[in-house]
Amino acid sequence: MKENKYDDPSFFKQYGQMTRSQQGLKGAGEWYILKEMLPNFHGKDVLDMGCGFGWHCRYAIEKGAASVVGIDISEKMLVRASEINLLKGIKYERMALEDAVFPGESFDMIFSSLTLHYIKSYHMLIHNVYQWLRPGGHFVFSVEHPVFTAEGKQSWICDEERNKLYWPVDNYFIEGKRNTIFLGEQVVKYHRTLTTYLHELLKCGFIIKQVQEPVPDSKMLNEMPEMKDELRRPMMMLISVEK
Amino acid sequence: MKENKYDDPSFFKQYGQMTRSQQGLKGAGEWYILKEMLPNFHGKDVLDMGCGFGWHCRYAIEKGAASVVGIDISEKMLVRASEINLLKGIKYERMALEDAVFPGESFDMIFSSLTLHYIKSYHMLIHNVYQWLRPGGHFVFSVEHPVFTAEGKQSWICDEERNKLYWPVDNYFIEGKRNTIFLGEQVVKYHRTLTTYLHELLKCGFIIKQVQEPVPDSKMLNEMPEMKDELRRPMMMLISVEK
Repeated sequence: MKENKYDDPSFFKQYGQMTRSQQGLKGAGEWYILKEMLPNFHGKDVLDMGCGFGWHCRYAIEKGAASVVGIDISEKMLVRASEINLLKGIKYERMALEDAVFPGESFDMIFSSLTLHYIKSYHMLIHNVYQWLRPGGHFVFSVEHPVFTAEGKQSWICDEERNKLYWPVDNYFIEGKRNTIFLGEQVVKYHRTLTTYLHELLKCGFIIKQVQEPVPDSKMLNEMPEMKDELRRPMMMLISVEK
Repeated sequence: MKENKYDDPSFFKQYGQMTRSQQGLKGAGEWYILKEMLPNFHGKDVLDMGCGFGWHCRYAIEKGAASVVGIDISEKMLVRASEINLLKGIKYERMALEDAVFPGESFDMIFSSLTLHYIKSYHMLIHNVYQWLRPGGHFVFSVEHPVFTAEGKQSWICDEERNKLYWPVDNYFIEGKRNTIFLGEQVVKYHRTLTTYLHELLKCGFIIKQVQEPVPDSKMLNEMPEMKDELRRPMMMLISVEK
C-alpha cells in the first residue's frame, strides 16, 4: 500500500496549519542546516520527490535551476503547490515515488524532504535515484531519525504531571511499519536503522558527503522555550551524497 | 583527566571475567561484522589504539601485518597482553591516546575497539589519526552507540517486576561527560552525536566506507534468549573510513 494520508481532508487541513506549510522554508527548523547541504543549482535539472507545497521547487528555480520536476502522491498537495509555487521551469506531476519512472541520467540533483519514512521500499527507491542521476549528481534528503521512528508512538514518556522524562527507544532493529500518531491522526510510517539508511547508499556507489542531525537554531531556542526539548533527542536526519 | 579505569584492581578483575576478555575475538558479539570491515593486513603497518589484552594485535599479525603497535593507558592491560598475545612484530606501549605522537604517514591501518567513548578530545584524535595514516590507509573503529551513551545511566527503564520497558534517550545533543555504571563501577564516558562522529571524519578528508550497528548473530540469538533485548536498541557503532 502506498501512503497517501495527505489527501485525507482533515489531515491535510492540520498539515496546512503547520508553520512549515504556511511560512515555507523559513518555517522549517532544519532549513538553516539543510540549505547548506544543497549544491549550486545553477543550470541544473532537479527532481523533488514528495514535493508537497512546492517550497523547495521554488527555491531551486530561484537559485537558477534549469528545470524542476516535483512529484507527490497527494493531489491536494499539488493543487496547492500549483497555486502558490508554480514558477516557470517547474512541472508538478502526481505519482507515488514507488511508481516513478525516468530515463537514466535525467537529473543533476534529486531532493526529498521528510518523505522517505513513508516509503516501504527504500532499497528500490535508492537504486532508482542512483540510475536517474547523472555522474557527479547530488542526492540530498531528510527523514525522521531512526531514534524518532523506532518505538513507534513518537511521543515522550511523561510522569503524572506530564513532565517529559525521556524519549523511548525500542524495537530498533525490527525495521518496517509503525502505526504512529501525527497531527492527531493515525499515520503509517516505516522505521529503518541508521545502518540501512547509509548502507544502501554506499552499496549503490554513492559517496557520503554529509550526515546531519539538526537542532533548532539559537534564535528559535531563545524565543520558544519548548524548543529546548529538541536538544533531548534527535528528530531528523539529513543526508547528502554524490554519484 | 585521562581515563584509566582499567588499572583499578576491582574493575580490572571484573573486566577480565567478561566473555570478550577470556575468549578474545570470538567472545565479542560484534566481531563477525567488524572483521568484514577490516582491510587486507598483508605487509601493513598497524596501530591499535586502546589495545587492551591485545586480541586485535594478534589477529593483525596472524593475518600477515608487517608490524603492529598496540597502545593503552592501562599497565595491567598491557601486562596481560604481553603474557597472552605477544607475537613477533607486535610492540605494546603504555600511553594515553591523547598523548600519542607518531611521525606523519607511519601506518597503513589504524584500529580502535570500544575506546573512543573514553576520550574527551575526539576532534584532536581524529585529526592525528589522519596525519598518522598513509594515503589510502584505513581507520576502523567501534564505539558505544550515541543512543547507548546519550542519557548516561546506560540501563533500561523497567517496571516493578523488572521487565525492560524501553531504552531511555535524553540529552542527546548535550555532548560530553557521562557518569555511567559499567561492570558495577562508576566509569566516566563521553557522549557524542552521530553527527559529530561522522562530521569530524568527513571534515578531515576521510571517505566513509561503512557504518554498521551490529546485532548478535543468529546462533547467539538462538542460544541466549536474553540476547533478544539487543534487538531493541543499538549498543555499538562500527565505522570504517579511508584516507
